[in-house]
Amino acid sequence: MNRKMVFYMFGRIGQIAALLLLLPAVVAIIYGEYKQLWAFLITAALAVAAGTLISLVCRTKNKVIYAKEGFAIVTVAWICMSVVGALPFTLSGEIPSYIDAIFETVSGFTTTGASILRDVEAMSYSMLFWRSFTHWIGGMGVLVFVMAIVSNMTDRSIHLMRAEMPGPTVGKLVPRGRDTAKILYLIYIVMTFAQILMLWVGDMNLFESVIHTFGSAGTGGFGIKADSVASYSPYSQNVIATFMLLFGINFNLYFLLIIRRPKPVFRSTELWVYLGIVAASVAIITANIYPDQQSLADSLRLAYFQASSIITTSGFSTADFNLWPSLSKSILLLLMCFGGCAGSTAGGLKISRVVILFKQILRELKRMLHPRSVSSVKFEGKPLDDQTASSVAIYFAFYAIGIMAVFLVICFEPFGFETNLTAAITTFNNVGPGFGAVGPCGGFADYSGFSKIIFSFAMLLGRLEIFPLIIALSPSTWRKNR
Amino acid sequence: MNRKMVFYMFGRIGQIAALLLLLPAVVAIIYGEYKQLWAFLITAALAVAAGTLISLVCRTKNKVIYAKEGFAIVTVAWICMSVVGALPFTLSGEIPSYIDAIFETVSGFTTTGASILRDVEAMSYSMLFWRSFTHWIGGMGVLVFVMAIVSNMTDRSIHLMRAEMPGPTVGKLVPRGRDTAKILYLIYIVMTFAQILMLWVGDMNLFESVIHTFGSAGTGGFGIKADSVASYSPYSQNVIATFMLLFGINFNLYFLLIIRRPKPVFRSTELWVYLGIVAASVAIITANIYPDQQSLADSLRLAYFQASSIITTSGFSTADFNLWPSLSKSILLLLMCFGGCAGSTAGGLKISRVVILFKQILRELKRMLHPRSVSSVKFEGKPLDDQTASSVAIYFAFYAIGIMAVFLVICFEPFGFETNLTAAITTFNNVGPGFGAVGPCGGFADYSGFSKIIFSFAMLLGRLEIFPLIIALSPSTWRKNR
Repeated sequence: MNRKMVFYMFGRIGQIAALLLLLPAVVAIIYGEYKQLWAFLITAALAVAAGTLISLVCRTKNKVIYAKEGFAIVTVAWICMSVVGALPFTLSGEIPSYIDAIFETVSGFTTTGASILRDVEAMSYSMLFWRSFTHWIGGMGVLVFVMAIVSNMTDRSIHLMRAEMPGPTVGKLVPRGRDTAKILYLIYIVMTFAQILMLWVGDMNLFESVIHTFGSAGTGGFGIKADSVASYSPYSQNVIATFMLLFGINFNLYFLLIIRRPKPVFRSTELWVYLGIVAASVAIITANIYPDQQSLADSLRLAYFQASSIITTSGFSTADFNLWPSLSKSILLLLMCFGGCAGSTAGGLKISRVVILFKQILRELKRMLHPRSVSSVKFEGKPLDDQTASSVAIYFAFYAIGIMAVFLVICFEPFGFETNLTAAITTFNNVGPGFGAVGPCGGFADYSGFSKIIFSFAMLLGRLEIFPLIIALSPSTWRKNR
Repeated sequence: MNRKMVFYMFGRIGQIAALLLLLPAVVAIIYGEYKQLWAFLITAALAVAAGTLISLVCRTKNKVIYAKEGFAIVTVAWICMSVVGALPFTLSGEIPSYIDAIFETVSGFTTTGASILRDVEAMSYSMLFWRSFTHWIGGMGVLVFVMAIVSNMTDRSIHLMRAEMPGPTVGKLVPRGRDTAKILYLIYIVMTFAQILMLWVGDMNLFESVIHTFGSAGTGGFGIKADSVASYSPYSQNVIATFMLLFGINFNLYFLLIIRRPKPVFRSTELWVYLGIVAASVAIITANIYPDQQSLADSLRLAYFQASSIITTSGFSTADFNLWPSLSKSILLLLMCFGGCAGSTAGGLKISRVVILFKQILRELKRMLHPRSVSSVKFEGKPLDDQTASSVAIYFAFYAIGIMAVFLVICFEPFGFETNLTAAITTFNNVGPGFGAVGPCGGFADYSGFSKIIFSFAMLLGRLEIFPLIIALSPSTWRKNR
């Protein structure tokens, strides 16, 4: 592997992390939080110093990177960002335990939204801002971010994209990876501003609007109140629910709309299945929780918000769905696993994988009846090659095994079956809340440090879609020459 | 489809069911249980009358059956056997609800061993015998049974075998399906007698020996005591544990040993992985439960029995593992899903599928690093064709979806997450006990009639490995000509 280039990239990432930390520092100045300001500045100084040193030492002419290097860069980028990003929390004393801070920051960058905070309302403005800002950064991926800024990348940067972009296939929108990143990033920024504006005209102030937009854009879910979004007006809740849904759609579709090619958008199987699942879930949950609510409108609003929040793996909540009837809970559990569309900021399995899996099952049924028939699985109008199709099934197996493994490792925790299992599911799918003690009103504070590290690993596994992380962590990847 | 031939087979199955009912009738005579005797005789008379009528009406010269017909025959055979086999329980008044009786009988024939009985010790001898005898019949499959007796089958009977034999591949031991069935059946009978004998020389009487052998041979798990096998001597417990393990091994391997070709047996990946998993589980559980036991020998015996019972999906127990530490419980949960070897009487995913899945995951990791490399998955020394390999991954997906679906449908039941989920897992994998209220000391008695039917369906799905049942139940299968 081209280790020099990989280390050089780490250096650059350190510099970028320093740059990003200046934004919460500005917030700290605005609100006069000087202890917090120092925490951000010290961390930024450390990051820029280490980053510059590494990138100077590891400067290389050989900028060629292959899949292996791409996976390594992406993986260590997330880990580095988290390790650096956790420092201000501990330096400021707001999250005294560094392991807790790591958990919180990994949860932020992976856009999970699971939290170890016992009292989020006691946090300072700048720390709340930084916490939610990690969602926004994580949303489109640290590396798409990096690519849009670091200018000296070769065309090979598409390898980075492949490691980063969620979902089974990455459509190359434009020939060069860097341009693709810029376009996706622009869409992301425009949508972010739109949501901030729409929230600001409601009952939220600018700070609240920004925080909740960060959480929606990254499909993360960190809020600033103990009851998440429940105390805001129905208008704000509906705006957030709708934007979460929008951020859960494949960004390629927005690009196609911009260049005025709406046909493939309206024919997108994934989009329609996604919207269909949401509509069906909202309908069932509305009917199911209606007896306990004051009006049908209330039930509908709650169902819409929760379904949208969970399928996009955001994790905001306007109700303690832990107390809902089992049917609604089971549907939410399914949605957690489904996740949003490929090529969005959402986590989970991704709708496209779910669709491809179902189509493969149907083909398998046909095959059993007519063993000599040859048929291929079609997706988005095109036949899928066997390798991609089988990759999806294998991904699913790995995914299920991954969740089981996390559950197995943390099973010694005294929280019972429901809490432990949904904790594994919610972290692996980058959702945030689960059921039981990790429900919308609970959190991960009471888990041991060991389990918090395991959960952090699970969040990274889910966010990077397992394979890149496993490859990056295998020693053979780091050998000098293969 | 050749509907006449399918119906003709139903008729024959009815006749065979009648024949099978004569054995518990004999037991009823021995123990002087005359009310029970009448229940068996009336049921047998009904079955033979209906069966003969149907087979006379549907006699056909066209005996050709394809995959479709095979799946239909197998599926309806299990359902018919259960519907008929449940009658004596209700006619005798020992299980007053017919739905309960259906559940119990499906649980028997699918070799699950889940029970709705609140007090098994109150049952009559002949009913206990019939209940366990269904395990033995179910063990090698109603149809292998049928094939060994019904003589007028064509060579196409291998289609029946494919629908019946558990696991991803069926090795044709000898060219003709009927001969294969006879050989497997002979091995099954010899092993059954060996176990009866070994239990009889211990502290069990003949009746107890037969009952527990039926439960082990079919990897079913119906016992006759409230505490399952816990009150028998360590010797009996170890004999049962060992025979369960033996019945969980691919029967082809026994055949190879008989014809003196031991090499492929000792090289069998599946066998070694199976034994390895058992050894590792026993070691971990022994260490994990040791602090609560009186001696290391006790822990080892308990761990061996429970691991063997659960991985072979038998479901006998010598301890309430519901109260064990979470680590042990999690391992048992994994073993439930793994199941025994392909081509055995065990349920679950099957070890061969687990191995093939892991190998595919490794290949996928390689593929991501070197996209142009071509490599195939090897299993048992031979390269697996891509279609079989991908079938395994798709089967796994369908399996996971099936368990989730069952869990979703029964989620309205007030038993909590752990009970409902493990109830779905244990029925789908044909194990028997789960955790919580369906643990070794609990049962399915408190579930609603609706859920009992869903669980019965889950047991059939698991036993028939999903696809045949789905195909047999789809209306298009039953159209006259395709």
